[in-house]
Amino acid sequence: MRVGVLTGGGDCPGLNAVIRGIVRKGVQEYGYDFTGFRDGWRGPLEGDTMRLDIPAVRGILPRGGTILGSSRTNPLKTADGPARVRRTLSELDVDALVVIGGEDTLGVAATLWAEYGVPCVGVPKTIDNDLSGTDWTFGFDTAVNIATEAIDRLHTTAESHMRVLVVEVMGRHAGWIALHSGLAGGANVILIPEQRFDLDQVCAWVENRFRIRYAPIVVVAEGAMPRDGDLVLKDGTLDSFGHVRLSGIGEWLADQIEKRTGKEARTTVLGHVQRGGTPSAFDRWLATRFGLHAIDAVHDGDFGAMVALRGTDIVRVPIGEATAAVKTVDPALYQEAGVFFG
Amino acid sequence: MRVGVLTGGGDCPGLNAVIRGIVRKGVQEYGYDFTGFRDGWRGPLEGDTMRLDIPAVRGILPRGGTILGSSRTNPLKTADGPARVRRTLSELDVDALVVIGGEDTLGVAATLWAEYGVPCVGVPKTIDNDLSGTDWTFGFDTAVNIATEAIDRLHTTAESHMRVLVVEVMGRHAGWIALHSGLAGGANVILIPEQRFDLDQVCAWVENRFRIRYAPIVVVAEGAMPRDGDLVLKDGTLDSFGHVRLSGIGEWLADQIEKRTGKEARTTVLGHVQRGGTPSAFDRWLATRFGLHAIDAVHDGDFGAMVALRGTDIVRVPIGEATAAVKTVDPALYQEAGVFFG
Amino acid sequence: MRVGVLTGGGDCPGLNAVIRGIVRKGVQEYGYDFTGFRDGWRGPLEGDTMRLDIPAVRGILPRGGTILGSSRTNPLKTADGPARVRRTLSELDVDALVVIGGEDTLGVAATLWAEYGVPCVGVPKTIDNDLSGTDWTFGFDTAVNIATEAIDRLHTTAESHMRVLVVEVMGRHAGWIALHSGLAGGANVILIPEQRFDLDQVCAWVENRFRIRYAPIVVVAEGAMPRDGDLVLKDGTLDSFGHVRLSGIGEWLADQIEKRTGKEARTTVLGHVQRGGTPSAFDRWLATRFGLHAIDAVHDGDFGAMVALRGTDIVRVPIGEATAAVKTVDPALYQEAGVFFG
Amino acid sequence: MRVGVLTGGGDCPGLNAVIRGIVRKGVQEYGYDFTGFRDGWRGPLEGDTMRLDIPAVRGILPRGGTILGSSRTNPLKTADGPARVRRTLSELDVDALVVIGGEDTLGVAATLWAEYGVPCVGVPKTIDNDLSGTDWTFGFDTAVNIATEAIDRLHTTAESHMRVLVVEVMGRHAGWIALHSGLAGGANVILIPEQRFDLDQVCAWVENRFRIRYAPIVVVAEGAMPRDGDLVLKDGTLDSFGHVRLSGIGEWLADQIEKRTGKEARTTVLGHVQRGGTPSAFDRWLATRFGLHAIDAVHDGDFGAMVALRGTDIVRVPIGEATAAVKTVDPALYQEAGVFFG
Repeated sequence: MRVGVLTGGGDCPGLNAVIRGIVRKGVQEYGYDFTGFRDGWRGPLEGDTMRLDIPAVRGILPRGGTILGSSRTNPLKTADGPARVRRTLSELDVDALVVIGGEDTLGVAATLWAEYGVPCVGVPKTIDNDLSGTDWTFGFDTAVNIATEAIDRLHTTAESHMRVLVVEVMGRHAGWIALHSGLAGGANVILIPEQRFDLDQVCAWVENRFRIRYAPIVVVAEGAMPRDGDLVLKDGTLDSFGHVRLSGIGEWLADQIEKRTGKEARTTVLGHVQRGGTPSAFDRWLATRFGLHAIDAVHDGDFGAMVALRGTDIVRVPIGEATAAVKTVDPALYQEAGVFFG
Repeated sequence: MRVGVLTGGGDCPGLNAVIRGIVRKGVQEYGYDFTGFRDGWRGPLEGDTMRLDIPAVRGILPRGGTILGSSRTNPLKTADGPARVRRTLSELDVDALVVIGGEDTLGVAATLWAEYGVPCVGVPKTIDNDLSGTDWTFGFDTAVNIATEAIDRLHTTAESHMRVLVVEVMGRHAGWIALHSGLAGGANVILIPEQRFDLDQVCAWVENRFRIRYAPIVVVAEGAMPRDGDLVLKDGTLDSFGHVRLSGIGEWLADQIEKRTGKEARTTVLGHVQRGGTPSAFDRWLATRFGLHAIDAVHDGDFGAMVALRGTDIVRVPIGEATAAVKTVDPALYQEAGVFFG
Repeated sequence: MRVGVLTGGGDCPGLNAVIRGIVRKGVQEYGYDFTGFRDGWRGPLEGDTMRLDIPAVRGILPRGGTILGSSRTNPLKTADGPARVRRTLSELDVDALVVIGGEDTLGVAATLWAEYGVPCVGVPKTIDNDLSGTDWTFGFDTAVNIATEAIDRLHTTAESHMRVLVVEVMGRHAGWIALHSGLAGGANVILIPEQRFDLDQVCAWVENRFRIRYAPIVVVAEGAMPRDGDLVLKDGTLDSFGHVRLSGIGEWLADQIEKRTGKEARTTVLGHVQRGGTPSAFDRWLATRFGLHAIDAVHDGDFGAMVALRGTDIVRVPIGEATAAVKTVDPALYQEAGVFFG
Repeated sequence: MRVGVLTGGGDCPGLNAVIRGIVRKGVQEYGYDFTGFRDGWRGPLEGDTMRLDIPAVRGILPRGGTILGSSRTNPLKTADGPARVRRTLSELDVDALVVIGGEDTLGVAATLWAEYGVPCVGVPKTIDNDLSGTDWTFGFDTAVNIATEAIDRLHTTAESHMRVLVVEVMGRHAGWIALHSGLAGGANVILIPEQRFDLDQVCAWVENRFRIRYAPIVVVAEGAMPRDGDLVLKDGTLDSFGHVRLSGIGEWLADQIEKRTGKEARTTVLGHVQRGGTPSAFDRWLATRFGLHAIDAVHDGDFGAMVALRGTDIVRVPIGEATAAVKTVDPALYQEAGVFFG
């Protein structure tokens, strides 16, 4: 039995831990051979492979990124894509495919299995934690730890009660990183994409905070948007003044707060720092177990399944369950956090 | 309404986050007043209190330890204890008590509520993660991260393939820290209290590892024990040679491995480093939410209840459920990790 | 003998360690009493003081910021400032002043001693490391470690060879943080204020890097400027297209690189994260020793002196020596680093 | 021109940064070819080499350990050693050798150059910082940061004022790590090999500390020894009671303190954790510059020289200067720290 493995989509700490878990158990317990496909779906499309055996996965557990490379290539949007994938697998005698990725990558796996009979098992991946069907995704805990450490350091300046501190964190469609790092870091305002914010309310919280001689720390997800009026879009869109804007919501918000409250504001934009580097212990544990259980699913012939965390158990759910809808922050959870605002 | 709060048992990162959550929500949403009891159950026994209001909890979120202090004082083992606790609460007009602690501290709360009508709500606490009724306890993630970081650093030496590296981590009765940090750190042997180890097997794994020019890293819980023969007990017990032993299982194991394999072995004993310092983001999130939900339970008059994590939800369970039995490592989980041994 | 202490200027990890060193040695070895002045020179100007004794400095060693508060108040720019400072010291029986600060704060101390006879001892402080007279300033090592950690994490994304990663670090007038973190982090381009950069050269380095299938990491000091043409100024200046620009050099550079090379670029702006939080071990060691030696200087009546690091020794230099000129990066040092560019 | 590189002695964070600096500058600026010798002096003795070019040093900057491997093999204690080294170099057309190591490894280089004409340039290496001729050695700052972080975490437990906390750190012959981490971590007692300690004095400090409701933290170098009487030797020596002792000074000291003060004591033994893992920013900066300057020395034909740090400059000194005497802690420095004891 020969099993192919690929990783698709954006970087995510823990990808290598999944790969290692798959290979160690696959080789040692099931006697499988492995083929690593390079750069996500580009690998099976173009037949680009790499050796994937026990020596190849040595030492990769603590390393960020993915030894297999990644891409956003989509065989469903490629001429003759599914057939080319099937041909590659057939030529290389690959009997099953473990697909590690987010919504797009897994969506392809679901379709290739359901409509083209390509035997896929899925492993959910996103630092944004916005995939349905699993309690948590690996990479998220690492991102939250990094953002929380940054917020921790800003408290020192906040204590000097002179400046508003705005931290922009990842999260285009879901505010999980903002919510968790904001809660863990003791932020005074948390803004998420799920709920448009009222700039007046934000400024009121900011001013309230200065009253107790402590500067406010505002955590804002990159996808958060003000309630009305101003458009804040990166790369080429016009803002409400008709100017081309380069900067993101963090810079914009700091600028608005300065103008409205008269307080200096400073911005931290963590960017890709949140998705790189060594995974946290939790993410390594989760990713390793995902890998072990994914190869079990292959062994059981349970194709079309995706591994998922439920409580402390790894379970299997249909791949489609994860890709059906973005898992956004429950309004009740956001409201729960509201006790710390202002 | 006036609510008392106490923390009992050993240090645990996240205690202050719980206290802050309780007070912030209690004051701001419910209008409660608070009384902090010092040093666990000693506080209500002796009427030793401290101010506990919004300013008192400012800045404590990232700090390890507990601003309330702690102790192992047990009112059930103190003459007239329960009556003294009731008298203190009555004299101070304290209407309810939030009790944050482990097996012992919560056991007292369960009894005081069930048998003496002291209105208690429980919050589970242990870095060992060995309390039933909750998926995870706060403090555990922090401990695992610290141990994992230590193991990460040892891989550098392991790569020089010259020495066996033994890391002793916490866990007298349950091997959760050893299991998780061992998995996350890529250890080659993990030894837990739940399953007596075979020294010959350990040495076989060790020797196998050297064959691939990489030194073995052995993670051992402080409560792990060899299968037969030798007694390894700290503080005053005799070992099998009739000598008084000072050192723990880590030193003993390193010594045995040296003698049997002829390889040098070095020991790291992390000790209290694992239970101090700032909590991880996960632990702050969990502890904060435990605090928020504990005061909700008080507000609902749901005494005898303990907050707990189930999946991503905070639920309530009877306090007794947590203290009924130590939550040990499931043999299936330990076996799952076994693919990485040797 | 009563000694006053004040801290002026921006936040800097290690300030509390200096204060603790001064007080511990001053009280224990010399039997001095201390007066803490609040918020830099505002304290002596307005007579705003706080208790400063052994209990007041307990536990502050690892904490960022300053328990004394800080400000940019300048008595030389305040009506009757020097006289007011002298009056306060006289009224409070303060016999000497330890002044911890950067160029501005120390400049005041130099003048107050030279021209008004206020007995000052100086301690140099700046995370930018741009004070003359001392090998290193405390706070700098912490800032460099934080920036280096961020760069480390970006290498994961760089390995996916898809995007240019721009990191903006502190340094308005001197590029020390950029140079050291860029060297330590393995950046491919380092841009400092001391030398205007050629955008074409930067883009050539960037493109060269992609050729080896590895994305470039560009570290840019906030005060770095392109050689000609475009103006990049924060807060209200027009850029070359006549648009009001909000963002800093990092965003601008990423935008230019995208336009010229056609490669996506992402920005990380660390901001105040670099100057907050717990100091590194080196900074605590240096700051502690500065404190111990500053109080020795007071004891010796060596006013007008500033403590400084030379090699591994703490020496005394005239305060004016530190404030005479900004210590910028030596062109030879910058050139030495150039071997890693591109 | 072909240059050989070897690394000898114990692990030390920064070794890879030196190697990378040598190769990057040697290839790019001087057009040299390189030969990597494996496992210290064993490499040239046995002709065991590895490829060492620009791709070989990619990504190694942040990694602990050494890609070249290390050993304690000594050609001066090997039959016909110097001649074999010369023959290897001759056969491989290696014109010069950069030797990165501690006292022993560099001592060999000094002799091979002085007596056998083998053209060596030295780079000093030891985490213990005990080499003369240089202000600091790389690896030391990393070790001190790790130990300081551990001490930081212990303060949480110390605040509960219940237990004495003993931390054993590296340092057999010199107390630099103990002194610096003890100072940076705010330890209450620091014990170093340079000065035998008085157990009564240690216990007096311990008891004094409890009086202010704070438990003492004792940092002890592994080579520290009590003033009289008891022998504390690892591995097979008898202690004063005639028992075989396994454990080190940390365990012994905790045991003695418990017996004499009646206070519980707990030990942390960091072990090899201190010398593994990623180097600090300072160590990477220093190691990188050592590498750049070592290859400059080769280019200048300055054999028999060793690079060294003086202030902020890299200078050259005779190799013998570093190996002449262990650089121990100056009694005045130890006394300076004494203000924080007790």
